[in-house]
Amino acid sequence: MPEESVTSFEELVARLRRIFVNAGASPQQGAAVARVIASGERDGAKSHSVYRVEVCLKSMRAGTVDATAVPELRDDGSPIIRVLGNRGFSCAAFELALPVLAERARQCGLAALVLNDVGHFSALWYEVESVADRGLAGMAMCPSYSAVAPAGGSRPLLGTNPFAFGWPRPDGPPYVFDFATSVAARGEIELRRRAGDPIPEGWAVDADGAPTTDPDAALAGAMLPFGGHKGSAIATMVELLAGALIGDMSSREVLDDLGGTSLVPVHGELILAFDPARFAAGRDADPARQGEALFEAITGQGARLPSMRRYAARERAATQGITLTAEEQAQLNRFEEHGLDALS
Amino acid sequence: MPEESVTSFEELVARLRRIFVNAGASPQQGAAVARVIASGERDGAKSHSVYRVEVCLKSMRAGTVDATAVPELRDDGSPIIRVLGNRGFSCAAFELALPVLAERARQCGLAALVLNDVGHFSALWYEVESVADRGLAGMAMCPSYSAVAPAGGSRPLLGTNPFAFGWPRPDGPPYVFDFATSVAARGEIELRRRAGDPIPEGWAVDADGAPTTDPDAALAGAMLPFGGHKGSAIATMVELLAGALIGDMSSREVLDDLGGTSLVPVHGELILAFDPARFAAGRDADPARQGEALFEAITGQGARLPSMRRYAARERAATQGITLTAEEQAQLNRFEEHGLDALS
Repeated sequence: MPEESVTSFEELVARLRRIFVNAGASPQQGAAVARVIASGERDGAKSHSVYRVEVCLKSMRAGTVDATAVPELRDDGSPIIRVLGNRGFSCAAFELALPVLAERARQCGLAALVLNDVGHFSALWYEVESVADRGLAGMAMCPSYSAVAPAGGSRPLLGTNPFAFGWPRPDGPPYVFDFATSVAARGEIELRRRAGDPIPEGWAVDADGAPTTDPDAALAGAMLPFGGHKGSAIATMVELLAGALIGDMSSREVLDDLGGTSLVPVHGELILAFDPARFAAGRDADPARQGEALFEAITGQGARLPSMRRYAARERAATQGITLTAEEQAQLNRFEEHGLDALS
Repeated sequence: MPEESVTSFEELVARLRRIFVNAGASPQQGAAVARVIASGERDGAKSHSVYRVEVCLKSMRAGTVDATAVPELRDDGSPIIRVLGNRGFSCAAFELALPVLAERARQCGLAALVLNDVGHFSALWYEVESVADRGLAGMAMCPSYSAVAPAGGSRPLLGTNPFAFGWPRPDGPPYVFDFATSVAARGEIELRRRAGDPIPEGWAVDADGAPTTDPDAALAGAMLPFGGHKGSAIATMVELLAGALIGDMSSREVLDDLGGTSLVPVHGELILAFDPARFAAGRDADPARQGEALFEAITGQGARLPSMRRYAARERAATQGITLTAEEQAQLNRFEEHGLDALS
């Protein structure tokens, strides 16, 4: 049994990339997924950390994600840039288009990136942070698979439909939030199921629409949207903008397509980029300074900014390395030795 | 004392327009505000109904809103259209730019309308519905004045920062939601204060940061964001996108500028318009049909769509007219006879 071990970000990216490529992924696909997972592990963002290698490999084995797919950029010079993912991983589609999205946003002031037909394993915080690192504000959203009842309903229809936003900061990493529009992320319920812990009240209903604290019953029933009818409305907006609008799947169609929720969902995503220099042009105002004043006022009354915990984990990783648990080590070792055959 | 009376939408618009013009508004400004207020009264949307004529007139008297201002369109052919409101009402600025926004969205696929320096009395549902009536998806947001503590904080910083979205439907009025990112709208607390009713727990804290159910204490303290840290994040995004990004005021600056919350706030607004025909181009998909399937699935499990109550009130008004209470009648009569002198 291996022990807990410490690795660097670069080592972890290389190791994960090797695992994916050995399992049949193209270098482009494997490297893109590896960067997202290593970033999640580095930042202590468990929903995209090493334990999720398994679901990615399972999706490759099932053929629902094509990790040899070549994403195709479709750019007609308009503010809408599209990538046809061809059922490859979303991470590769996003990496391909990010420079074009940033350039177009600076040129037009506002641009949209549409990802179609992608095996969605992106962390939206990773994406809006990448947009904000280029001096732009970014908004990202996507459906997932039906798992959440609309407010006032009792059956799964909406996905956990994450919504994320990033804002560039002059000194240090961007202001970033990224949350599921369900009360909890599916991954959080999954982690409690694995740990044998109950879930808090208000997270979910069982298959009969009754409130439950049992993770298994919750996963078989429906999660609830955050914030009642307001959160439900936002989740609905995500279905419309990142599904219907862009000619891609709804969460219900994704579930019908895959027949379950154990594989990476295949659908679309919408990412918007806003250039403060263009939006504030001609105004006697400094968007960066105003943003900083807001953040200072938030932290000045003892409230936290989202992502602070993630950035703190990132700083620790930079000085102390990334710690993999014995279990994570063992799993990666198995994948390195046996590839897809290591899957249960 | 006048009695309850019934009026038509057109009569109410004309009457309100007359009141505003007699009080010193330009016909452009007066007509635009009148249409929003009459629409709110018709739809049973109290936060923009007849009782709000008073705050508009008070803002004119105080000189914080200039109801003779001529809004100026700034259009460089890019996807960003700007209106300088010159402290006139937002409603007039929006009316001026709506056709250009719709045309640009069809041309570019995606367009943004920035309103700067407007006395903000727009109902965002009115605006996103107007966008959706042109076959486009619309998103709108704006700050207000510091009244809401960020999640984890205790002092007013964020505004009630409404966020709205509209989606065109082939048969009937659009899918529209419009909500304050505070648990409750300021207007809802104000209405309970006037009625002498307490507010529910969880809506607000008093000036010392302690939970309160007293509307006066709540208005003197801080409201809370909906949905905990997620709603707080969205309210923060609204400050950044519809304040810092567009070179306009934050909710804190608005409060400092006006010195209180009894007048119409003067700040900016951001409205985005998305053309489904362009976003879904080349895809084997029908955005309208997919939207309808989603709405049917929501209502099919007994959940409501937002705006259903408003549209039902609108239908009743179309057949039975709009009923003004005796108090509303008396107030309008006073404004008709005495103009600004009727203000307390």
